[in-house]
Amino acid sequence: MTDRGAPWVLGVDSGGSGVRFALRRAEPGPPAGTITSKEPVRTGPAGIDAEHLLAQLLPAAQELMLRTGTDRIAAVAVGAAGMATLGDALRAELPGALADALGVRGLALAADAVTAYAGALGQRAGAVVAAGTGMIALGTDLATWRRADGWGHLLGDSGGGAWIGRAGLDAALRAHDGRPGGSAALLARLEAVFGAPGELPGLLYPRGDRPAVLASFAPEVAGCAAADPVAAGILREAAGHIAASAAAVCPPSAGDQPQVALTGGLLKLGEPLLAPLRAEFARLLPYARGIEAAGDPLDGSLLIATGIAGDGLRLPHDPRMLWIANGVTDRDRVSAKTDQDS
Amino acid sequence: MTDRGAPWVLGVDSGGSGVRFALRRAEPGPPAGTITSKEPVRTGPAGIDAEHLLAQLLPAAQELMLRTGTDRIAAVAVGAAGMATLGDALRAELPGALADALGVRGLALAADAVTAYAGALGQRAGAVVAAGTGMIALGTDLATWRRADGWGHLLGDSGGGAWIGRAGLDAALRAHDGRPGGSAALLARLEAVFGAPGELPGLLYPRGDRPAVLASFAPEVAGCAAADPVAAGILREAAGHIAASAAAVCPPSAGDQPQVALTGGLLKLGEPLLAPLRAEFARLLPYARGIEAAGDPLDGSLLIATGIAGDGLRLPHDPRMLWIANGVTDRDRVSAKTDQDS
Repeated sequence: MTDRGAPWVLGVDSGGSGVRFALRRAEPGPPAGTITSKEPVRTGPAGIDAEHLLAQLLPAAQELMLRTGTDRIAAVAVGAAGMATLGDALRAELPGALADALGVRGLALAADAVTAYAGALGQRAGAVVAAGTGMIALGTDLATWRRADGWGHLLGDSGGGAWIGRAGLDAALRAHDGRPGGSAALLARLEAVFGAPGELPGLLYPRGDRPAVLASFAPEVAGCAAADPVAAGILREAAGHIAASAAAVCPPSAGDQPQVALTGGLLKLGEPLLAPLRAEFARLLPYARGIEAAGDPLDGSLLIATGIAGDGLRLPHDPRMLWIANGVTDRDRVSAKTDQDS
Repeated sequence: MTDRGAPWVLGVDSGGSGVRFALRRAEPGPPAGTITSKEPVRTGPAGIDAEHLLAQLLPAAQELMLRTGTDRIAAVAVGAAGMATLGDALRAELPGALADALGVRGLALAADAVTAYAGALGQRAGAVVAAGTGMIALGTDLATWRRADGWGHLLGDSGGGAWIGRAGLDAALRAHDGRPGGSAALLARLEAVFGAPGELPGLLYPRGDRPAVLASFAPEVAGCAAADPVAAGILREAAGHIAASAAAVCPPSAGDQPQVALTGGLLKLGEPLLAPLRAEFARLLPYARGIEAAGDPLDGSLLIATGIAGDGLRLPHDPRMLWIANGVTDRDRVSAKTDQDS
């Protein structure tokens, strides 16, 4: 029985809290099925663990194929945190493994910022800010990618959740010590959340998830901002950093008005952050149009896989940001012709 | 044969790069003997490992007693990084262990900032800044201790080596990204020291000694300061933080002019830091007198042990900052009387 619809594509979104899989036809629309794993893919000395990803991806793909009654996946797109610097094993092993196990002939491996971009703006020029615990801005004129920040909590991620939380704890401890720049309101929140200030270093430094611990204090900073000028100043400064990163990557207006979208959990801080963000974007990117993100990174993976399998990928290829397994797609084109001929 | 000089005292300085031991008479002067171990005392979930410290302290004390021909140590003072929050096992185990093994009857356990203070200023009122990878200021009016900062690289240590290095790397990556606040000169130094900026997160984050890696860039910031306004601005801001911490702990002038000393490896950055430091101290602590540190933390341990064994300890007792094993000193007083009587 020949399946006469568009080919099927699999989108994968691998992040710090687990992996999500979605299957749909290579055309716009919601997924036909999704699977969520709460098991984050391991990262070892050799980077993201390809075996561990495959051990989740292959059963998930087979389950989704069973559910939808399809016997073949034409293309897969995997978006993963750390893909740019830690994706060598995936780039080496996934093309062959997916071709052998599932007959997949199109594969894209994308940085999570790229799938966030594709989910938010699709294949249009503009800039996307992904702000959660960290903060990264990605922009493209559809010729090249430009990235700003995303350097992690010790080197940057300026304006992200860990940055805001850390600035809030610093202000709290300044009040505790009697140093300038302190906030008694933030000190009270520190004590309510973490207990005695003297215990905080012992709570924080031994943890493996220090950035998340710092970011957990960001909502306290937002909660104090209405009444506390120090907290409000931290959020204003964060908004300035975020808008500056967006402005650094946004393509110049060339006829079209570039689109800019904000994504990520940091937006949950609400008006205390969003009000200064609007002001800073108006100041630094007056020519851009702020829009709501159309979808999330899993939608972005599906959009990229759809581009490979069907209507064409206009987002720029890049060995670290958006890598396409060329051998596989070449073979795909050959056998697509053979399928048509037969 | 009765030893008719002043009793002998042992000073111990336990830090991140090892442990130093010094033995001398309980009177001012250089040590009669010193031993240096390159093995830092382990810190586990229960805090500083008392067994591991004793396994180094007891043989070192016996070796120094052999060298100097003494048969008895009257008092020991141990200064250790983390003593305030991680010293519970030492406070529980050291008094008995030292009494049993060496007949020691006077024991002080001090935070490393306290031994730095005692080494720098002796038993006088004032403030001492200890700035290396981290930064802490400690002051006393001889009634209580006041501490400012020393919260570690994620919560404070503002103006210390890791803080300066991190600010320099942030400015370098801003230049790389095209964000505001960047420094092309610091970016060139980042590339010379660490290689391609894209590799830096992978070099830094897996390390256990991240603060030291950050601090290793502080001399590069100092090296750029003469020609680069961003680097100079970082050092000016660091100097402001350091002076503000000193001002927060320095006792007010009450007849005497309080003394302030700067100690620690950060001073090796030289004039690029020292010039703004002088300016900031003149601005924030005009009533204090800046002096050269008389000695280092090992000298401070010897001074505290000498105070216990002989001429009296005027620095304030504090359960976390400068803890005196009272039971032991009480027993010491009793048996000192017995010695005199016999």
